[in-house]
Formats: sequence, C-alpha cells, structure tokens
Amino acid sequence: MTYSQAVLNGNRLALARLLTQVENNTPEGRAALVELFPHTGKAHLIGVTGAPGTGKSSLVNQLALLYRKVENWRVAIVAVDPSSPFTGGAVLGDRVRMRDLSGDPNVFIRSMATRGSLGGLAQSTANMTQVFDAAGFDAVIIETVGAGQSEVEVARLAHTTLVVDAPGMGDDIQAIKAGILEIADILVINKADRPGVENTEKALKSMLELAHPTERVFRHHGLTMRTPLDQTTGKPAPAQDSSSTAMWIPPILRTVSIESKGIMELAASIARHVAHLRQSGGWALRERARLEVELETLTREALWNQFHEKVPQEEYKIVLEKVVQRNISPWEAVNELMKGRLK
Amino acid sequence: MTYSQAVLNGNRLALARLLTQVENNTPEGRAALVELFPHTGKAHLIGVTGAPGTGKSSLVNQLALLYRKVENWRVAIVAVDPSSPFTGGAVLGDRVRMRDLSGDPNVFIRSMATRGSLGGLAQSTANMTQVFDAAGFDAVIIETVGAGQSEVEVARLAHTTLVVDAPGMGDDIQAIKAGILEIADILVINKADRPGVENTEKALKSMLELAHPTERVFRHHGLTMRTPLDQTTGKPAPAQDSSSTAMWIPPILRTVSIESKGIMELAASIARHVAHLRQSGGWALRERARLEVELETLTREALWNQFHEKVPQEEYKIVLEKVVQRNISPWEAVNELMKGRLK
Repeated sequence: MTYSQAVLNGNRLALARLLTQVENNTPEGRAALVELFPHTGKAHLIGVTGAPGTGKSSLVNQLALLYRKVENWRVAIVAVDPSSPFTGGAVLGDRVRMRDLSGDPNVFIRSMATRGSLGGLAQSTANMTQVFDAAGFDAVIIETVGAGQSEVEVARLAHTTLVVDAPGMGDDIQAIKAGILEIADILVINKADRPGVENTEKALKSMLELAHPTERVFRHHGLTMRTPLDQTTGKPAPAQDSSSTAMWIPPILRTVSIESKGIMELAASIARHVAHLRQSGGWALRERARLEVELETLTREALWNQFHEKVPQEEYKIVLEKVVQRNISPWEAVNELMKGRLK
Repeated sequence: MTYSQAVLNGNRLALARLLTQVENNTPEGRAALVELFPHTGKAHLIGVTGAPGTGKSSLVNQLALLYRKVENWRVAIVAVDPSSPFTGGAVLGDRVRMRDLSGDPNVFIRSMATRGSLGGLAQSTANMTQVFDAAGFDAVIIETVGAGQSEVEVARLAHTTLVVDAPGMGDDIQAIKAGILEIADILVINKADRPGVENTEKALKSMLELAHPTERVFRHHGLTMRTPLDQTTGKPAPAQDSSSTAMWIPPILRTVSIESKGIMELAASIARHVAHLRQSGGWALRERARLEVELETLTREALWNQFHEKVPQEEYKIVLEKVVQRNISPWEAVNELMKGRLK
C-alpha cells in the first residue's frame, strides 16, 4: 500500500511518516502529494500569527480543544517556526501542548522548523497542510512564531487569518501590526485581563480606520477589495450589493487563553467568517490565489533545476569568480549565463 | 551626467534619487548599479536585528553618532521594515532619528518598506547597500524590524551582525533567539538597566554553550566552522592554528542606548570583529557568499522572466484552471508547462 492510500485510510503512523517525507521533500513525499491532491480542498485552514509574547500557542490549544469538544472535529496543528531553533524550541512548544491535547487520536500536532529559503518554508507548510486536508482533518490551524514577512506568507495559506496581539507590547510592535493588519480577518487581543487592554483595542481600531484616507483597502491573497468611503461622513459607503463587494470588517475580540475565556466567541467569529467567505465567493478566490502562488513557486523551482542541468557547475563558478573579483557586475554575469541558452 | 557619476562625485540629491530608482527596480536604477559595482567592496556592512521592543533603532542611532564623532566616518542607515506599514511606521521611525542625526551631511538614513517577495526585499536591500558602498560611505548599518526569516536573510548581507535582546521579553522570544543566535557575531543586551538583565545574560550564555553537545557550530553565510570540544573538560579544544580555524565566540555586551551607555564598548567590539574577519579570511568568505546568493537570486528572476516570454499567458491560465478544478496537481501542471520547452 502506498503512503497516500494508508493516509486516506486513516493510518496515523503512515501520516506521521509521510509528513516527514513531505517536509524533507523526498521523491516518495512528492509522489504522495500528487496522489492526495484530488482529495484536498475540504479542510478549513486557519492561520494564526502575531508578535512573540502574545500567547498564540496557548490560544491555538484552546481553540483546538473547543473544536474537539463542541464540534467533534478532527484538528491538525502545524506550528511553523522559521527561526529554526537548534536548541529545540519547537519541541518544547510541543510538550506544553501535549498536556492538554495528548492522547486524543483526532488531534495531530506537527512542528516545522525548516531552514532554507522562504519559498521552501511556505511551500513545505502548504504541502503539510494538503496532507492533513486529504487525510480528512476538518480544521488545520497554521501557527507561526513572530510576525515577519515569512510568517505573513505562511499565514496567507489560510482561509481565515487571526492576528493575535496583547496589551503592553511596546511601541516597536506598532510598526509590525500595521503590516499584518492587512492580512487579518479577525483581530484577537489575548491576555485581555492585563492592564492597557483598552489602549490596545483603541490602537487597533484606529489603525483599521486610518488604513487609507479616501477608501478602505482590504488586501487578501492578491485580491484587493476597495470600499469607497462616503465623502461627507468619512464612513464606508453602504455597499451596493453586499454579496458581490465581499466586505468583511475584521472584528476585534478579547481572550484570556490560559483561562479559556473568549474562546467560544472566537470560534463563533471564525464560523461567521467562513459563512461570509462561502456566501461572497471569497472562499473560491482564496483557493485560487493560493494555488496560483503554489504553481508559480513550483515552476520557478523547476526552472532553476533545469538551468543547473544545462549550465555546467564549472562554468557557473567561473562566472561567479568574475563577480567576486568585481570584473563584472552580477547583472552582467546573469546575461552571460543566460546568453545563447534555454532558447 | 549619469546617476552613477553624480553619486560617485558625492551629489546627495542624486544619491537620494538613485536610491528610489533602485528600490523601484527601474531600468535607470539597474544601469547605475552595473556602473557602480566596481566601486563597491569597501564599506563595513553592519547588520542589526532582534525582537521588537529591544530598542534597536535607538541603539543604531547611538552607534551612528559615535562613528561620526569619534571616527569621522560617513554613515548610512538602511532601516528595513518588511511589515510594510501603510500607516507610515517607517516614516515615524525616521522622525525619531532625525532629532539626533539631522543636518549632518555625512549621515544618510533610508527606510525601506517594500512589499512583495522576500527575494525582492533582500535584493533591494543589497542593491541599496551597494549604492551607499560605492558612494563612499564607511559604514552601512542595516537595521531590520523583528526577527523572522526575512530579517535574518537581510541581516546576512552584513559583515558583522548584531543581535539585540532586552530583559523581560517573555518566553515566546526564546524560540526566536535560538534561531538568530546562529547569525550573531555580537550579542547586545540593550535596556540593560532593567531588572532581569542577569537572567537574560545567563539565558543567552547557556544557549550559546548548549548549541551542540559535542562541538560548537557557528554557521555564517553558508560557512560552518566547527570547533571540537575537549572530551574531558567539555570546553572548546584549543585551536591548532587560531588564524586558520577562524574561531569567533560572540561576545555578550550590555548597553542602555537612550543613555548612550556601552556604545563605546560596542564600537570597540565591532572593530575587533572586523580585525578578526580580515585576519582569518572571513571577510573575503562573506563577500563571496553574499555575491553568490545575489547571483543566484538574479538568475532565478531572469529564468522566470524568460519563461513568461515563452509561455503565453493564456496557456498558463488554462493549466492553472485545471489545478483549481483539481483535475491535475500543481506538480503535474509544472511538468505540462515545462514539457518540450526551454530545451
């Protein structure tokens, strides 16, 4: 039996092994992905990102527990840690989770700390997610540490993206918030029992409102939805046709994950977002955008591999040496390498 | 007169305009980069990264001020903010800097908040850095907000990388530290007047020491330097030939940047690192590694552009549609697109 058949049959050990194959990008892993692909497209992919220290992992745990208890969903968690700890940070994170979720066969947690290119990390995460999707998990929660560009790209795999904040995170964080607000479907203020929660909420609200002086722009997965503001009131103009304009104003929720507070409300908000996506056609748009990015990434990789088959390593090194000696610029070097080839 | 000639002549306005051309990747910008390339390779490139809230910007200001006053260096600062605030976070950061550094013609500060692919951001930063290098700036400080993969890649442009930490940053940060410790040449505990500084230093020390059970691995720009541990003492074995093994143990320094404390010591440590790089051959290795990455990035981009010239957009869309309908997997789609082409 192939990996993919075993995974489709619900074999947990095969799933674990296949995930390793996929993470390592082995031929077996790639073959299984091709076989599993027709079975994908059912799971709800939930991205969770935000600055360090906001309690994302604990929030993800609580959400997974709730999905288990209330919805009886099968839940997968992919914890992406692009900082690639060599001291085992990701493993430590797992241990913390295990206390609540261990022993439940309908929960599968996987940490990724893959190094290398960003494309590699985002692609690996996308592939892992597809395996869980094909394996019949109802929800796949993709959690990323930090809030840099790479995490944002990983979070963009999701149908619904939560951006987690917490009171008292300092000024420097503000700049980061601005960037990730664009990808937020739901804003969560975790640790909401801390002092300063009102200020955090006020700051988030004004950042949402000040996004653009004359229009509100929500940029999702390459899709820009502009809602013109009423020039008199400065408020968003009433949508002409709410189902086609696909307007979703990110709600701001408060949670205290270590006390399980606000998790029901968060799950309800996520459910409303899914309903909105289904109704507005946003779900299909996001699926398409995601697959478009994936196709481009894979094509770029194939082109690079093909180039390396054609240009002898020896020749490449000679050209590189000319650049290192500053005899030619990198741009001239590329022209030299491409010239007369790959017609 | 071309941009590059004006920049080589020290024309500040031309420099500012060229940086914009380079950031926007215009033909004029690219042409100037080719002309300027032979003039690069002299500046000391200093990367500064670390978690949000550690006071990196203030530290960079102080370092720039010291280089001006003590060394009379021309100093450029490239502040990279991959979170791309649409509310102007980068501009705000500039204003804060301006109080200390404005009006000095030998200081040039440039914020980058470019969106798009990581390759794009790292490449833009590299190009900006080359412009400053050719324009005769003695030091180029590349500051990145946050500590994700993208920031790490940007910081890797540098000869000397500072990783900034601060007391009381919470557990979640620990995981990030582990990853960026690998690229740190110098560890800075800023805000060192805060409580908890001892714990922060202890944690950093043990992370450095626990990196690997039987050997210490320092990975820099693709160069792995392994120092075997003495099996009896567990300490690093004495180097057989200190100039060839290129051992550099990242020192841990304390600063209070808003009070200008520890900045002289930091500058001295940076100078020691430069001397070490020069002596050990590490400087040349880093230059080569950096140019190798740049050549690869540019070649990949050229291959993708060439592919798009050859494959009609219409055909690409038809294949994409098959993927979206899940008739074929993305991997099969790539094979279809590549088949019989680009011989």
